[in-house]
Amino acid sequence: MKLDCSKAADEGFLEDRRDAIERELELVDSQVNEGYGDWRGTVNLPSDDAMLERVRGAEDRLVEPDLVVVCGIGGSNLGTAAVHEAVPERAGAELAFLDTVDPDHTRRVLDRMEEALDDGNEVVVNAVSKSGRTAETLANFKTALHTLESHGSADGSVAVTTSDGSPLWEFADKRGFEKLAIPEKVGGRYSVLSQVGLLPLSLAGVDVEALRQGARKARDRSLELDGPAGRAAAALHDNYERGRSIHDMFVFSKELESLGKWFRQLTAESLGKNGEDGAEGITPLVSVGSVDLHSMQQLYMGGPNNKIHSLISVGSEHSVRIQSVDGLSEGPAEMGQGELMDAIEEGVEETFSEADIPFIEVELENRSEAEVGAFLQHKMIETMVLGRLLGVNAFDQPDVEGYKQATRDILREDGK
Amino acid sequence: MKLDCSKAADEGFLEDRRDAIERELELVDSQVNEGYGDWRGTVNLPSDDAMLERVRGAEDRLVEPDLVVVCGIGGSNLGTAAVHEAVPERAGAELAFLDTVDPDHTRRVLDRMEEALDDGNEVVVNAVSKSGRTAETLANFKTALHTLESHGSADGSVAVTTSDGSPLWEFADKRGFEKLAIPEKVGGRYSVLSQVGLLPLSLAGVDVEALRQGARKARDRSLELDGPAGRAAAALHDNYERGRSIHDMFVFSKELESLGKWFRQLTAESLGKNGEDGAEGITPLVSVGSVDLHSMQQLYMGGPNNKIHSLISVGSEHSVRIQSVDGLSEGPAEMGQGELMDAIEEGVEETFSEADIPFIEVELENRSEAEVGAFLQHKMIETMVLGRLLGVNAFDQPDVEGYKQATRDILREDGK
Repeated sequence: MKLDCSKAADEGFLEDRRDAIERELELVDSQVNEGYGDWRGTVNLPSDDAMLERVRGAEDRLVEPDLVVVCGIGGSNLGTAAVHEAVPERAGAELAFLDTVDPDHTRRVLDRMEEALDDGNEVVVNAVSKSGRTAETLANFKTALHTLESHGSADGSVAVTTSDGSPLWEFADKRGFEKLAIPEKVGGRYSVLSQVGLLPLSLAGVDVEALRQGARKARDRSLELDGPAGRAAAALHDNYERGRSIHDMFVFSKELESLGKWFRQLTAESLGKNGEDGAEGITPLVSVGSVDLHSMQQLYMGGPNNKIHSLISVGSEHSVRIQSVDGLSEGPAEMGQGELMDAIEEGVEETFSEADIPFIEVELENRSEAEVGAFLQHKMIETMVLGRLLGVNAFDQPDVEGYKQATRDILREDGK
Repeated sequence: MKLDCSKAADEGFLEDRRDAIERELELVDSQVNEGYGDWRGTVNLPSDDAMLERVRGAEDRLVEPDLVVVCGIGGSNLGTAAVHEAVPERAGAELAFLDTVDPDHTRRVLDRMEEALDDGNEVVVNAVSKSGRTAETLANFKTALHTLESHGSADGSVAVTTSDGSPLWEFADKRGFEKLAIPEKVGGRYSVLSQVGLLPLSLAGVDVEALRQGARKARDRSLELDGPAGRAAAALHDNYERGRSIHDMFVFSKELESLGKWFRQLTAESLGKNGEDGAEGITPLVSVGSVDLHSMQQLYMGGPNNKIHSLISVGSEHSVRIQSVDGLSEGPAEMGQGELMDAIEEGVEETFSEADIPFIEVELENRSEAEVGAFLQHKMIETMVLGRLLGVNAFDQPDVEGYKQATRDILREDGK
């Protein structure tokens, strides 16, 4: 992973913020190899071999699945989906996600489960909820478990990833299902490299050791004061102070759209709150190139200059040649589609530069586990530093309880 | 479709804007049955029987496909994808999209084409580009055509949807391929109900007559001064003037996410520009409930009050019962997943109300063609009215040419 902030902010953007960045990076650094007693301890996940061993143990005891159904929402599945979509297809189980309670989507996943079970294939259901109380996840888990058991025993086919002692944990304990514990101070949006992500990803054939290795390398680089996390956070904060409170992650690969959605939660929950000095939060966007040049570019160029973009390019796995066609001289031909995509991205960079629209350039060499792991770890440390610069707590989410309580009240009034 | 603005703005929001709304609706109304001489003429599409006849004619002459590959980007495929994803699965051809030039995505679609052709199935390639010059679309079309012809003749398997006389048109003419003409003043983002959307949707088994009928009904209602388009536009403008320049389309159904992406282009290209009185454009967001309650809600509740939401609910096709499970009393049970989703949405509405976060409620009875068609037509007229209120031209996109020229220059310098 390479990161370039030279088109993102004027000189001095780093100097002005050096003390705050140093302070946060020291706090993060002080947690390395110190377990999970602090919210910053999530940086230990990629080097926590005991945790990986527990995942491997669960894998060994579970059936070898053809299909894994992950019941989880928000931080409990966005990271898993992001890595799974970003990394090229690996030999392993098919992954399906039950996140919200959309009956039509759920029906499709249940049909797929039933088809697999009817064919005599193995299905693993993995329920993921830190609190063990998430309404949608419990609803989906109960339904998926029912489907599993209507085709035979669920023994060896269920794993829960939750806090030790939660209702989900206690249930799994009684039933003899696999249990993986989420430490108290590993928040959902920082949990992709914990058991939350590793169990389903490993079952799907993703090389989780390479993912962790990439994350470890990125951690070491990001803990340097002039490393990518500090620089990017400073550039984002500099733009924030100039009225650019929208951060658009503009990925030039369709396979990275889910990575964008993971970033969206990380930013919205970590930074979408009032800071000590009246800071009001950053709104994340996700754009996909070149599709959104035909959708959002008018706004980006002709609308308010209130956005900073992170342009993410990635080397592709395949190459596809654009054939020339007799009689159709218009349009590109005799080049790779990747070359055209690169030229388009370069064209966007030139156009943004000329219009003084700031952007950070991020280059992933390819979609390998190592590169994706590096990006994830970089982004999480960047977010911690940016939280410090904005004067907000990047680890809480105090304002999400309201609708949950209201929903419970509504259901209670309805006698449910 | 039902629309309720009572929680979106204070009383008087409509009165203050009555003259401007009336003016725009009169202009739109004056175009009904008047063809396509004005950009507002797109409201004629749902009643243009001659156009539908041309689509039917092309369908009759084409092979009966098992797979349709649509080469198009932005306004040339977002509407088609939105309707296709929103409407329940119909008996018809499979649809695949080649929009951007992402080699890994393209490779997958080409593999699917080759698999179908190898199995002796019929494949139709539909290239859609109003200018007939869109780089990505021509690149994909050339590649798809090459794949088609490497398996036999392309006769009867290709249709182009483009402007009469464009390079794509001339090529199709020489080759004897099907040609459907896009009128000069039907812009991409307003073209879903034209041949652009109707040909691929009809081949995919979507009931395009029901789609048109729903749109016609919505048009009649939206042309009333107190109809949904005028009311919603006024509410959005009222919020815009109060500093809420972000409009979030929050769909409570995974199947409507692509409809959100269609809305995103419609808003960004139509309204993302500087107005006469210094208006600076509206930034569209798309959220999916309840997933994004676990991602964006912290920002929506705890961040800046600079957003207005359109909460879109839709009746589901299937019902899925949440089973009760012995030993797991926590969480919902013995109700439909749809009931839980409804309670969550109601919980969000209560919470937004209490926090003075404005929202428009839109209720689609179901995901039928008629309801989806109504929503599309409503949104397009709403956007025209909102453009008038903002003092912008809702039909041009003057700022998207820059990166295209830069890209061409880069390719030329590289000798391509």
